[in-house]
Amino acid sequence: MKPYIHKVKYYECDRMGITHHSNYIRFMEEARVDLLDQLGYGFEKMEADGIVSPVTEVNCTYRKTTTFQDEIVIDVHLAKVSTLKFDFEYVGRKDGAVVFIGRSTHCLMENGRPVVLKDRYPNLFNID
Amino acid sequence: MKPYIHKVKYYECDRMGITHHSNYIRFMEEARVDLLDQLGYGFEKMEADGIVSPVTEVNCTYRKTTTFQDEIVIDVHLAKVSTLKFDFEYVGRKDGAVVFIGRSTHCLMENGRPVVLKDRYPNLFNID
Amino acid sequence: MKPYIHKVKYYECDRMGITHHSNYIRFMEEARVDLLDQLGYGFEKMEADGIVSPVTEVNCTYRKTTTFQDEIVIDVHLAKVSTLKFDFEYVGRKDGAVVFIGRSTHCLMENGRPVVLKDRYPNLFNID
Amino acid sequence: MKPYIHKVKYYECDRMGITHHSNYIRFMEEARVDLLDQLGYGFEKMEADGIVSPVTEVNCTYRKTTTFQDEIVIDVHLAKVSTLKFDFEYVGRKDGAVVFIGRSTHCLMENGRPVVLKDRYPNLFNID
Repeated sequence: MKPYIHKVKYYECDRMGITHHSNYIRFMEEARVDLLDQLGYGFEKMEADGIVSPVTEVNCTYRKTTTFQDEIVIDVHLAKVSTLKFDFEYVGRKDGAVVFIGRSTHCLMENGRPVVLKDRYPNLFNID
Repeated sequence: MKPYIHKVKYYECDRMGITHHSNYIRFMEEARVDLLDQLGYGFEKMEADGIVSPVTEVNCTYRKTTTFQDEIVIDVHLAKVSTLKFDFEYVGRKDGAVVFIGRSTHCLMENGRPVVLKDRYPNLFNID
Repeated sequence: MKPYIHKVKYYECDRMGITHHSNYIRFMEEARVDLLDQLGYGFEKMEADGIVSPVTEVNCTYRKTTTFQDEIVIDVHLAKVSTLKFDFEYVGRKDGAVVFIGRSTHCLMENGRPVVLKDRYPNLFNID
Repeated sequence: MKPYIHKVKYYECDRMGITHHSNYIRFMEEARVDLLDQLGYGFEKMEADGIVSPVTEVNCTYRKTTTFQDEIVIDVHLAKVSTLKFDFEYVGRKDGAVVFIGRSTHCLMENGRPVVLKDRYPNLFNID
């Protein structure tokens, strides 16, 4: 899989002159959208299937600051799958140095009910 | 009508240390949502009626900068009504001095078709 | 301390019709800014002292969705203090039900060097 | 000059399922940053020169809605130069159809004083 690259926008930086910490949560979303596109199972297909994928938990550790025009190279992978939930892990780097490490937990919902992941999408979720 | 007050958030300020100009467009939305609530015709009621209200044009003139923790007092009023479109005008002040003047144009759509404003909502739109 | 109340804005909601998960990280910032104001040690005073307070880690668990116009009542408290870092914990509720639980870790920097918390601000950080 | 392309993010769409109108103001900023980079006079050089470039007015007309994953191709050009102010004009297209037309007005400030544009940057601003 190719990493996702986010180039930091002017409006994403704050009074300290650095990328506001909340934006990394958005970059993580961009990176997993891109991963799912590369896997051929994008959000659009999911939504067309009537499936929504809420985030149930998110975590981000900030190692180095970034700022306007920086290119953050983000690697994302599926880190854990349980019956109803799965985790993505993210590592963002600038010029090779780690700037953030993230993790997000998701479930899939269909008609208001949780989807049993390995039954419904064996190709995606049987990662062991 | 009571004016709407927006207190500027840390994450709304940019590298120059001032409220990013794009955020005023959002403050204008907050102010008209509040006005419609005061008029007893909020977005929720509109959405429940199956009506959406897209913005067709927006304009903002910036007079003075604002920053973190500033309270912007926003007066908004219905400035113009035509058959299918209406305009809100906004004046934002800080400590009495004008910081921005805005204008937004809207239409109402029902089942994908434009609503004839004065026929459908005579109480709201007969402002002459 | 009074809890902080964030009323969800239209532009904070996403295609699923719910408050986008990244925004809760911003609500957490709003709540700690408000807490520091109540404690008489606001961001402005900190910045005037030449001190910046970067976020080193953030975590948020989402329990229930919220949407446009919902009022989220956020309680925040200082949860942990070590030599150079401190944690805030947040509980956000809507109509009494928990909607999110958050945690953020911070340090203080002065002239590019970390501040020893209990030495510099004994009144704020001696919470044991 | 190459046009700038913005691919719409999930978090940029609202409850109506469309790109929130405020975000186009940000796309306009991205496009002019990119233009200035192409011209060899980026924001970073400007900031290094001690010059800031506040926005004094912004306007956007929305022609067609866009949504998540859409690629908006934005052409931007310098439309007008007066002694102290200059205007950019923007046309955003999706699959060839115009989705928005924008305009922004700027000045340049150095040490708190407005810069006389054609004196200071004759190569950039003598567009007649």
